[in-house]
Amino acid sequence: MSTREPKQERSRATRQRLLESAIDCLADHGWQATTVSVVAEHAGVSRGAAQHHFPTREELITAALEFMTDNRLALVREEAGELPQGPERTEAILVRMVEHYTSPLFKAALQVWTAAAADESLRERIVPLEARFGRAAHRAMVELLGVDDGDRVGHRLVQGTLDMARGLGLADVLTDDSARRTQIVRQWARTLDAALSERAVSAQC
Amino acid sequence: MSTREPKQERSRATRQRLLESAIDCLADHGWQATTVSVVAEHAGVSRGAAQHHFPTREELITAALEFMTDNRLALVREEAGELPQGPERTEAILVRMVEHYTSPLFKAALQVWTAAAADESLRERIVPLEARFGRAAHRAMVELLGVDDGDRVGHRLVQGTLDMARGLGLADVLTDDSARRTQIVRQWARTLDAALSERAVSAQC
Repeated sequence: MSTREPKQERSRATRQRLLESAIDCLADHGWQATTVSVVAEHAGVSRGAAQHHFPTREELITAALEFMTDNRLALVREEAGELPQGPERTEAILVRMVEHYTSPLFKAALQVWTAAAADESLRERIVPLEARFGRAAHRAMVELLGVDDGDRVGHRLVQGTLDMARGLGLADVLTDDSARRTQIVRQWARTLDAALSERAVSAQC
Repeated sequence: MSTREPKQERSRATRQRLLESAIDCLADHGWQATTVSVVAEHAGVSRGAAQHHFPTREELITAALEFMTDNRLALVREEAGELPQGPERTEAILVRMVEHYTSPLFKAALQVWTAAAADESLRERIVPLEARFGRAAHRAMVELLGVDDGDRVGHRLVQGTLDMARGLGLADVLTDDSARRTQIVRQWARTLDAALSERAVSAQC
């Protein structure tokens, strides 16, 4: 057992390096250029070892999106305690969320969605993954914002907020959109607060 | 002159058929598959004639995005008179706008943006085009909604609305998202109306 443990450990580290490299390659070089060989080279792993972990590009890329998104969702939960209470809270939550949609992970996912739009078998693989991530992101936002998700209006405002974040992510793909984005997010935090607090008042009446 | 006119006319019609086919090919088959030859075949035009109009794929696709977006913006202006006045107006405007972001034109543009993210020379071509379209879309929304664009809050609410529409477009790329989208747009119309009318009242005070 004492010799197996480090081997398993090494294998796990290799796998993780491949997954992280896959995201970087997708974000920087696009879907077409991101093959198992290219990712292996980027990760400093032999092609054989890479193909032992991930026989096809589809398997590598699906696993990479899953691993990185789960990591990011876990980080959102860990950092939840650091968010301010009071009037700055909503903007702070939106800023964190929008950081996700402008990260290399989002840019990598965008490459995969776009490829999947013209590739039936990739689409079948990606759609359930996306649905799971969408639900997890919605749940995280509901908890952080303290929204009553059973309330139709609250539910839709959270959904619309996630759509806006996705749109802000897309606007950042070709140019650095951060200055404009900061203003939009600040305004949206105020509008969302007003809409949610009006809702909370009407629910009490 | 009498023989030149029909020839010019035919050439214009061929050009337009190529531009429309380029959008269809991009939306259905993606960037990689959309070559001048494939588009020519789809349009029923000889490869030589297609290359006479558009020597490179980049030229064809840029011209296609420009032509189709200009057409769509012209349509938005033409149809403006049909929009209802009164409480249904904002939702009707948002529905029209979101139709644009879920059209084949948006799906085609998404293919080009994603390719441009990993292609410097394509990016240089697309970024000024995108900036021009973004300004035109903003101007159209400001006019239709009757927003004071000099007001910082009004300006940012219109910008955020366009970001949300872009996000809704992205959510429709892999699955039919129309049922969810209808609810989000309805809610957003109410929230936007409340935010804009509050702004109009405070401007009068």
